[in-house]
Amino acid sequence: MITLSSDFGSPYPAAMKGVILSRTDARLVDIAHDFPRQNVRAAAFWLREVLPWFPPAVHLVVVDPGVGTDRAALVIRAGDHALVGPDNGVLLPAARVLAGDRPISVFEVQIDDPASHTFHGRDVFAPAAARVHEVGVDAIESVDGLEAVDDVVEFQFAEPVIGTASATGEVLVVDGFGNAITNVPGAVLDDRYGRSIEVNGEAVPVERSYAHVGPGDRLVTVGSHGYVELAVNRGRGDESFDISAGDDLRLDW
Amino acid sequence: MITLSSDFGSPYPAAMKGVILSRTDARLVDIAHDFPRQNVRAAAFWLREVLPWFPPAVHLVVVDPGVGTDRAALVIRAGDHALVGPDNGVLLPAARVLAGDRPISVFEVQIDDPASHTFHGRDVFAPAAARVHEVGVDAIESVDGLEAVDDVVEFQFAEPVIGTASATGEVLVVDGFGNAITNVPGAVLDDRYGRSIEVNGEAVPVERSYAHVGPGDRLVTVGSHGYVELAVNRGRGDESFDISAGDDLRLDW
Amino acid sequence: MITLSSDFGSPYPAAMKGVILSRTDARLVDIAHDFPRQNVRAAAFWLREVLPWFPPAVHLVVVDPGVGTDRAALVIRAGDHALVGPDNGVLLPAARVLAGDRPISVFEVQIDDPASHTFHGRDVFAPAAARVHEVGVDAIESVDGLEAVDDVVEFQFAEPVIGTASATGEVLVVDGFGNAITNVPGAVLDDRYGRSIEVNGEAVPVERSYAHVGPGDRLVTVGSHGYVELAVNRGRGDESFDISAGDDLRLDW
Repeated sequence: MITLSSDFGSPYPAAMKGVILSRTDARLVDIAHDFPRQNVRAAAFWLREVLPWFPPAVHLVVVDPGVGTDRAALVIRAGDHALVGPDNGVLLPAARVLAGDRPISVFEVQIDDPASHTFHGRDVFAPAAARVHEVGVDAIESVDGLEAVDDVVEFQFAEPVIGTASATGEVLVVDGFGNAITNVPGAVLDDRYGRSIEVNGEAVPVERSYAHVGPGDRLVTVGSHGYVELAVNRGRGDESFDISAGDDLRLDW
Repeated sequence: MITLSSDFGSPYPAAMKGVILSRTDARLVDIAHDFPRQNVRAAAFWLREVLPWFPPAVHLVVVDPGVGTDRAALVIRAGDHALVGPDNGVLLPAARVLAGDRPISVFEVQIDDPASHTFHGRDVFAPAAARVHEVGVDAIESVDGLEAVDDVVEFQFAEPVIGTASATGEVLVVDGFGNAITNVPGAVLDDRYGRSIEVNGEAVPVERSYAHVGPGDRLVTVGSHGYVELAVNRGRGDESFDISAGDDLRLDW
Repeated sequence: MITLSSDFGSPYPAAMKGVILSRTDARLVDIAHDFPRQNVRAAAFWLREVLPWFPPAVHLVVVDPGVGTDRAALVIRAGDHALVGPDNGVLLPAARVLAGDRPISVFEVQIDDPASHTFHGRDVFAPAAARVHEVGVDAIESVDGLEAVDDVVEFQFAEPVIGTASATGEVLVVDGFGNAITNVPGAVLDDRYGRSIEVNGEAVPVERSYAHVGPGDRLVTVGSHGYVELAVNRGRGDESFDISAGDDLRLDW
């Protein structure tokens, strides 16, 4: 199985699929091709949340603002999974979750005169993903043109500060419903359901899900990723709370 | 085969696919993940129109404004098909068509401490769809944690009133082209092609397809679903007729 | 393998998939369903660029402003591939590339009382694609209801004029990133990387990829399709150059 993730929109992902299917008959599964353009953080977040639900697979990821520069192309072995994509940090948060307590191995793909300087998804990463799929995740070392490396571009999400009566953190991403997903662990809301906390100084009810408040009303809840989320039942939390990805927030209880 | 339908946009459907593919190697087919948000009527309409074209399958449907409340989760057997989704009526119009003259059986899924209160698509419905697929539609009774039920949330589309020289009905949905699809059966247009009828008091030509009028011109036609549709050749019928889903309309001939 | 391309958006492509999967268990791959509406030129361009990356397949294409008129429905054999779609030229540029130096054979599909006059994708083209897939590309002649034809609606992209110090051409399409893709071959930029050329009288740097200029800065590059492309690093070239599909452009060096 090969999953595909990108910020390409359409129809560029289809060219990657053609390249892969010319080399292997792997099952292909799209994760998303509408990740925010050239936004490594958003893609890193979603991949970390979604890929661990998959059985062992090769995950092709192309969110690649540095295409055509000298940034490296990577294959990462993480547990029973492999990730293939640019060396800009986008693969790392998912890789750490997929690896669990096993070591992560990183390989650099030799880029030999690709057909284009602007579409390495098609010309570099898709062929690499197909080769890794064909040899198997345990045998990545046997793929020609891969070289083990130690030093890669790091990426870490900001850590929240959790106190006894407050937490400060930031909005990691806003999802398509307008839910503002923060980096504050949902556990801070334990025992507070049905009561209120303050979000940036304003009281907001804490509820287990959206429909526990009226249509158009605000709530604080724990999203499916396990983090505190600012939401509006049948509306957009980002607009109601006037908050965007990257913004700081403060919770008081 | 398992089909997937939701109003999730992206990338949440991928998490459902990961859950399913961890449990079965069924073929997966996306119906749509951009159904109008939390709009049971629109999803019920499209599922009724699209699912009957499929061979026997398990149809996973998550348009679920009540997620995290005490609304039930259902599995419905309808002929050779099964539908899995929330108990809010969204499954019923399709189920009735898929069942034909065979009885419909409805089962409630026991919801045991799901991983989230906000994403039952991933934590409740996807696992249930995978289990139903693995045992087969004829053996739904053998799936652990399912209980036959009689009483479910009903959903019916409004019925039009068809007279000898007029019909009144409503717009069920507007499709992506801007075609306003009504609940008036296309048969009312028989023998009127090439002539005009009145739509809310204005004369509009009746044609078999869009290109029979000039670019930008209005027409009344029968859409691929068999209903009267208000359209504009190479334009948007909803805007030209100033009409939206849920609006009443009157046809006179 | 059957690929699917259309301007249908959602959920109409799913009905085509249901029809196909009722007739064959071919692998299905979406190329795109968001081609610009009823825009034969844009679809013809993308299909020519994307389909040649695929292994032998049947390519179902429905960009069909003339649906329900007397325009013919075609099956084209091009090398080891087949294309199925309306007789409006949309299939031809891709067919010529797929055929290479082999002859192209064209067949007309008999349209027998389809279920609708507005959705031949579902009622005419999808069944035809399934039949062609089942008999195989070499045996298209054996499909019932197909008739060899010679005369089809032609489509050619405009040819650029390449001089010794200038080129004039046009913008063929704008992609989802805002890159304006022209019909001028990338070879005119050879030996000019790191220098500037004039685009409609304004000096613009020539670079191998986007990140060679600063965020928000303009560049001229060769896109993955091999043509000169007007772009902005992390921005939209079409807006910065104030240029749209179909517009003329002049390059001077």
